[in-house]
Parts: sequence; structure tokens; C-alpha cells
Amino acid sequence: MRQALEGIKVLDLTRVLAGPYATMVMADLGADVIKIEAPGIGDDSRQFGPYVGDESAYFMSLNRNKRSITLNLKEEKAKEIFQEMVKKADVVVENYRPGTMEKLGLGYEELKKINPGIIYAACSGFGHSGPYSKRAAYDAVVQGMGGIMSITGEKGGRPTRVGPSIGDITAGLFSAIGILAALHYRNQTGIGQKVDVAMLDCQVAILENAIARYVVTGVVPKPAGNRHTSITPFEPFETADGEVMIAAGNDALWEKLCEALGKEEWIQDERFQTNPLRTKHVEELVPMIQEITRTKTTAEWLKILDQAGVPNGPINTIDKVIEDPQVLAREMIVEVEHPVAGKLKMAGTPIKMSETQGGVRAPAPLLGQHTEEILKELLGYSDEEIEDLKKENIF
Amino acid sequence: MRQALEGIKVLDLTRVLAGPYATMVMADLGADVIKIEAPGIGDDSRQFGPYVGDESAYFMSLNRNKRSITLNLKEEKAKEIFQEMVKKADVVVENYRPGTMEKLGLGYEELKKINPGIIYAACSGFGHSGPYSKRAAYDAVVQGMGGIMSITGEKGGRPTRVGPSIGDITAGLFSAIGILAALHYRNQTGIGQKVDVAMLDCQVAILENAIARYVVTGVVPKPAGNRHTSITPFEPFETADGEVMIAAGNDALWEKLCEALGKEEWIQDERFQTNPLRTKHVEELVPMIQEITRTKTTAEWLKILDQAGVPNGPINTIDKVIEDPQVLAREMIVEVEHPVAGKLKMAGTPIKMSETQGGVRAPAPLLGQHTEEILKELLGYSDEEIEDLKKENIF
Repeated sequence: MRQALEGIKVLDLTRVLAGPYATMVMADLGADVIKIEAPGIGDDSRQFGPYVGDESAYFMSLNRNKRSITLNLKEEKAKEIFQEMVKKADVVVENYRPGTMEKLGLGYEELKKINPGIIYAACSGFGHSGPYSKRAAYDAVVQGMGGIMSITGEKGGRPTRVGPSIGDITAGLFSAIGILAALHYRNQTGIGQKVDVAMLDCQVAILENAIARYVVTGVVPKPAGNRHTSITPFEPFETADGEVMIAAGNDALWEKLCEALGKEEWIQDERFQTNPLRTKHVEELVPMIQEITRTKTTAEWLKILDQAGVPNGPINTIDKVIEDPQVLAREMIVEVEHPVAGKLKMAGTPIKMSETQGGVRAPAPLLGQHTEEILKELLGYSDEEIEDLKKENIF
Repeated sequence: MRQALEGIKVLDLTRVLAGPYATMVMADLGADVIKIEAPGIGDDSRQFGPYVGDESAYFMSLNRNKRSITLNLKEEKAKEIFQEMVKKADVVVENYRPGTMEKLGLGYEELKKINPGIIYAACSGFGHSGPYSKRAAYDAVVQGMGGIMSITGEKGGRPTRVGPSIGDITAGLFSAIGILAALHYRNQTGIGQKVDVAMLDCQVAILENAIARYVVTGVVPKPAGNRHTSITPFEPFETADGEVMIAAGNDALWEKLCEALGKEEWIQDERFQTNPLRTKHVEELVPMIQEITRTKTTAEWLKILDQAGVPNGPINTIDKVIEDPQVLAREMIVEVEHPVAGKLKMAGTPIKMSETQGGVRAPAPLLGQHTEEILKELLGYSDEEIEDLKKENIF
């Protein structure tokens, strides 16, 4: 089976998370992602724990399916090699602080002279324009500035950081979308372009209804805990051994829930007949439901609520997630054999395609593992030339 | 300026959030998104508050740049019209529960007979395979099941829901990526395909290092509050009037931070010389820093830390986000004039492109606003034929 992005060459100068996430998505879809790393050091995240032997599990999870070449881009000769590679490539991706590539003489304006069809994606904290452009950002900084923390957390509690680095990950996803849209345009016109994605911008783009709520009502949204602010019951309830999420999104589901709880009489209760009424009386209703949910285990409730057709689910910890039957059936946990680290489980691709299914084909590369292979294959270098470059510390 | 996805026709059967988010991203990039809605009712989210007049601000934020046609897909004649539209379209997107489109006789297997090049994207709670496939899901359910809640929240606290509906939004983003990858493949081969994206799968895909940490160490990750688990100092600190996020990601930044705090002597302090040491002594260090940060306002610290080159930022509430100079400079808040509701602010597109900049060109459509226009333009219907369809309650 062919892959959707087979034949697309991506030169990947990214490090750590946002950029590598974007190129991982593309590599999972079949693109040939060539990771260009600094000799001896490589992607900073090669130093991030936890380790399997000497290999970073963090790095291995994000860099499967990619090849690695080292190049010391401070050397003129290495810059020339990079430029030769750009001539043969479709996409360049970098997540340096704005200005860094220009200082190296490898900014978009330079590269497009070499290859006008090149798609150049820059993923940065604040973007390539605006007053904060040159400032450094981390996920925690953009989660704070972008508003998501201010609407996450316990009701009445303080702003709370989202556990995974959502600032990086959403920037990676929007970068991949921008690159693919630019690729479509290039397929039609032959014209490449620069795609500039900022982590902060992406945080604004995922605020969902919070902006609308504020601009229409003037009320500043706050952390709202785990319940839905306008649908009831729609939150986790305590069970005999944990919690169960119950999401009764409309009146029909509420009736099914009453039956599942053995409280058919609540269907007629005037306080609970419509969703607005249930929301109004939430302080009374939640303890009434909880009194019942506490009498059985989470596993028992999942079964009862499933049979009743009421949307529900456990609050899974990671050990449970990676063993969940649906997660496994969808191949969302894959095991990859790494030549040094051995077997490692990681997330699969969530994009399931009927003609060109992507997935994990190869483990993450060792630092510079494919340098010679790529110099030969892409640029036609001889063993002798490669030997010379090695002596000059170009890679 | 041309748009990246100009000329791409998307038939959009989606409702509420995950699907509409995917088609919004495509519409922002220039695709012609035709929203097909049930007559009289339309997308459920037209009923979601807050309202501006009679129009839902929730709906308007997510459906800008789209056109609306109503079709009663339970009627044979309407199905025929839809099939005629499929012949002229590039993409169909739906977020029904799996099986719904098949029951209507409009599943992918049927549609590809009509148009083998069609790209059919299905975005559902659990996906089109696996034991939970037919179950209904809401954002809260997949946030609970997918593990993100279990690693979000106060240290020692309970699992916490992410404020925005990240379960829907990430599924929308992965759907857009899948569609664009399929479009690239179709551009090369002429072959269409089905793209199947599940909200639960996407939650697994964004767990970041949590899976690696668990599978390598066997320790189940828990909510870790607002501090970075392995970098110090890297968390919000209290100021005289709020909080400031300080992210001193390495030793050089730590030294700059000490200078900014007026505590150069800490640079030599043996407890704090390296990041592992600072992390080990975090319980001592945080109150020491907080004692100083409390002496000035957040605005003062932002200025001092910026000058010192230490990554930092405020914890912005939504009112502050939409007035932030960088957010405004990047056109991440746009004001759209709606024919009925008037002006409404919403998030712009975070994908900035040098050749084909996308953005918000048109307000969200009224229900069925473009029915006649689309029937004429796409299918060449006459006024008379349209009049007949109207009488038959087809739209």
C-alpha cells in the first residue's frame, strides 16, 4: 500500500516538541523526513528522560519514521550541503527563534532563490511578526499568556496548566495543516511559500467558545471545574472505587439515566424536567445522583450505563489508557523495536485512511545514523568525498 | 491573492464542534465549504448560547466562511440532490455516529461508486472500528477515557478537565490533516479514500511524554500542578497583584533570573548550581523566589524579566488575551460583520502564509441562506425546479 505523502522530502531542522510533532505527523503519513542535527549533540530532547539504556524515550516517541543526518551549519561547507539538499526537497521545517535562520544565511528569502517551489515552515513561540516576535517562549509561557490556563482548573480555583504541552502540540498540528495546504497550492501552481505558525496564536485559536462568551456577555470566563457549565448532569460522579463520567446531553438521555439509576420517579420531578431546570438545580441534583453512584464500582456503572445508552466513561490513568480495548483495537498503542533501546510502546497515528494507511514503519534514528546514506542518495557524494567532509568536521 | 485551497469543494454534514472545526480550518484556507443542514433546525449549535440577538455566537465563531444549504436527507429526492453534489465535490465531511450515513444509503462505499475521487472524512467519538465504535461520545467522555484529565490538575488533586473542548478540537485538526494528505494523494493518483478520525484516538496521540514516562518507569503519571516536573524554576510565581510565569529552562537563564531578582549571590549557592540541584531543592527555592516576586506587580516583573532575557509571561484571562499587543499584531482576533447579528469578534487563523494568506472572508451563514444559489451554481437547477423542490419540502 502506498502512503499519502510518499515521495515528499522534508528537511527537518526542528528540536524538542512543536516542530518534531509536525514532522512526525508528516512522517507517519509517509513523507521522507530528514532530521538535520548538530554533530555530537543533536535534538536537545535526546537528553530528556526517561531513558531506555542511553536512548531518550521522549525523543524516540516523537522521531520515529525519520532519518538523521548531522551537519555543522556554522561551517560554510555544511551550509552549501544544506542548500544542495534544499534544491531536492519539498519542505523545510524549523522551530528556531525568529532571525536564527537568517543569521545563518538560510532564511526563507535565501532558500527560495535556490528553490522557488520550496515550502518553508517556521514554528515559533510568538511568530515571525509583532512586538514579541524575538522573545523565547516555552509551552508554559504560551499556556499562561494564551488564556487556556485561565479557564482550566477547579471551580473557584487558580488557573491550571494543561498536563500535556498543548501549546507545542497544537502548534505542531497547525504547522502540518499549513504545510499540506501549501503543498496543495504548489501542486497546482508550482509556487512555494513560507508558513509561519506561532504557539501563542494557536492557543488563541483553540479557546473555543470562551472568546464568544466573553465578547457577548462581558463576563470573564474562569476555571469551571469538571462539570459542563450549561448541561446537567454532565460531569464525573464518585463511585464505590473511583469516578465515572456521565454525559446526559439532552432530555432523552436524562430519562435513560434516571432508569439506569433506578430513579424513574425523577423523570416526573418538576425540578429536573428540562436541561435548564436541571442546571438551575444542579446543587441539589448532583448529591442525589452521587448517593446512588457511590453504591457500585466504576466497572459496574460503565456496564449499566452502556446498556442504558447513556454516554459515559471512566477517568482513565495512563496505565488504563494503553490497555483499553478500543485504544488497542484502533492500533493507537504501537510497539517499536529500536536497534539500541529494544522494544518501546508509543502512540500510533490517529489518522486512519482506507487507501494509504500511515503508521510507524521505523524506529527513531540514532544521531547521524543516515548521514552517509543521505549524502550518497540525495547528493550523489562518493565515499571519498564523504571521508573528506568527515575530516573537516562538517558532520 | 489566491487562497491555498481555492477551488476545493467540501460538502459539510457536520454539527457542533469537531467536524465544524475541521471544515472551518479548511474554509479559512480558501476551500468552498457547503454546510448541509436539516431544514428548520440546522446544526445543533445554532441553539447554543451565548446569543447575539437570535444568532448563536458559538455557531457564528465556528462557521464563518461557509455557505449553508438545507436538505431533508430523509427524502429520496434530497438524497439524489446530495449525490449529484457529491459528483461535483472533492471532500465530504461528517461527524455522525458510525453507521448513520450507511443507514441513509450515503456511506462511503455508496459515494465512491458515484465519485471514485471523493475524499470522505468521518470524525466520530470512537472511530469506525473497534468494540466502542457505535457508542456516543462527548468531549468530556473522551477527555476522561483518553488520559489527559488524569495528568491535568493540582499536584495531589483530582483529575481535571481541560477548559476548552480539546477532545473535539484535536479531532478536528487531525481530520483536516488527514483530508489534506488524502487530497495530496488524489492530486497524484486520482484516487479518493475514507479518512476515519476518532476523538479518543486523538487524545491518546496528544499525551506527549506521559506514555513514555509510564512504559519506561512503571510509575503512573498524576496531575502535577503548574510546575514543570523536571525543570526548575519553571512555574507561575505570585506577584503583588497576580502571578507571573517564569520559565528558566537552563543554567544560563537561571543566572539571568538571579540577576533580574537582584539575587546574584544565588548563582554561587551550591543548592542551585544545576537544574537537577534546583529541582531537588525546589521546596526551598520556590518560596525564596516568591518572597521577591511578591514585592512588585506582574506588569513590573514582565518588564524586568523581558529586559533580562528570561522567558516569562502573564497568566492572561480572556479579556486580556484579546487585547494583547502580540495577539492583535498577528490578527488573531478578527471582527466580522454579520448581516443579522452585527459585529462579532472571534479568533483568526493561526496559519500565516506568505503567498496564500487565509482568513475570515465572510460571516457564518443563516440557515439555508445559500440553498438556491448552490442548487443553481453547482447543479444548474432552474427557478422552476427549485420552486418544485420547495413545495415538496426537500429543503
